[in-house]
Amino acid sequence: MDIAILIYPRLTALDAVGPYEVLSRLPGARVTFVAEHAGLQRTDTGQLALNADVTLEQLPNPDVLLVPGGPGQSDLMDHGVLHEWLRTAHASSTWTTSVCTGSLVLGAAGLLTGKRATSNWQALDELRALGAEVVPQRVVFDGKLATAAGVTAGIDMALELAAKIAGVQVAQAIQLGLEYDPQPPFDAGSPEKAPAEIVDAVRAYSRFQEAAAP
Amino acid sequence: MDIAILIYPRLTALDAVGPYEVLSRLPGARVTFVAEHAGLQRTDTGQLALNADVTLEQLPNPDVLLVPGGPGQSDLMDHGVLHEWLRTAHASSTWTTSVCTGSLVLGAAGLLTGKRATSNWQALDELRALGAEVVPQRVVFDGKLATAAGVTAGIDMALELAAKIAGVQVAQAIQLGLEYDPQPPFDAGSPEKAPAEIVDAVRAYSRFQEAAAP
Repeated sequence: MDIAILIYPRLTALDAVGPYEVLSRLPGARVTFVAEHAGLQRTDTGQLALNADVTLEQLPNPDVLLVPGGPGQSDLMDHGVLHEWLRTAHASSTWTTSVCTGSLVLGAAGLLTGKRATSNWQALDELRALGAEVVPQRVVFDGKLATAAGVTAGIDMALELAAKIAGVQVAQAIQLGLEYDPQPPFDAGSPEKAPAEIVDAVRAYSRFQEAAAP
Repeated sequence: MDIAILIYPRLTALDAVGPYEVLSRLPGARVTFVAEHAGLQRTDTGQLALNADVTLEQLPNPDVLLVPGGPGQSDLMDHGVLHEWLRTAHASSTWTTSVCTGSLVLGAAGLLTGKRATSNWQALDELRALGAEVVPQRVVFDGKLATAAGVTAGIDMALELAAKIAGVQVAQAIQLGLEYDPQPPFDAGSPEKAPAEIVDAVRAYSRFQEAAAP
């Protein structure tokens, strides 16, 4: 089972690495990090680089396709070569998936029209504008499409996907192997749960980052 | 604030990337991935490579030090050069931290003698044998030492550390930015919670992996 994880400059590393850590542990899985240009892809903070082992054209028909998000997503919205690869891969994939603003890229490639999908809580309007039926949940399945909300939601999505692919017991064994018994010290992980001033601050910071982007 | 994350061949990527994603978002933080030899470090699955931007000697005195775990940890237990670097870094660090079996490396370097610490649930006996006072919790603080249990526990540890470094509100903003509102589809993330047959299977698989290791 070939699992392709797209990476690109200024992605958010955990969007990709969370699901990778789950999916790479599926029996028979071969995860490949793929990019337009092979080699190092420096993430959004500039402080970490993940390596893409192959180019898009070297892996045209993965069984599972995952598009992570991150600030660099905005550079992919008009990327014709990538969109063509996504459409081709999706045509034969068993599962087509995204984390965070990765769903915006799937949407820009035309893969989410009329489909139930989610994204980062700050990107839901943009997702809707791309033709998706927005479902503001942490993980959304629609047929063979699976989309996750922001960053860490990719871990939950991948576990659910692992169960669909290999059964609940395999997914539970992976969960135990990753000791995924989350105990966040605060309950501020969604805009509904975080204090209002924190939500406002994060929103303001996102606007600042967008304005300051090159 | 210099934050050094040690990486090495056959580490578990999420041990490093989870805390990185939290700590890199602290105001004034500069995270550096450091290794004995700079360049690509291929992780335990063989399917992902993270880049080390600098060598140990280029970053001798980080403010925060993090040692992730993974099967490659076993190659670091007699690594004199690394242990010397760890002892030197620890002497001046503000925080010395580990995720999963990374604590075994701290222990082998002599940094956990008599200290309260944790590790992967399958590594607690070995941690005790290295002189630590084992506390089977997900995150354990003892003075400036912070150790996390297996893999995903590093995210919880990093959020708690972020609050200690920059205050609860900053930590909550980071949590919201990462949409860390975990909703695992199963409750099998610890040996106490997982079904007994899953625990037995994961234990047996670990023994198999150890026996098959090169």
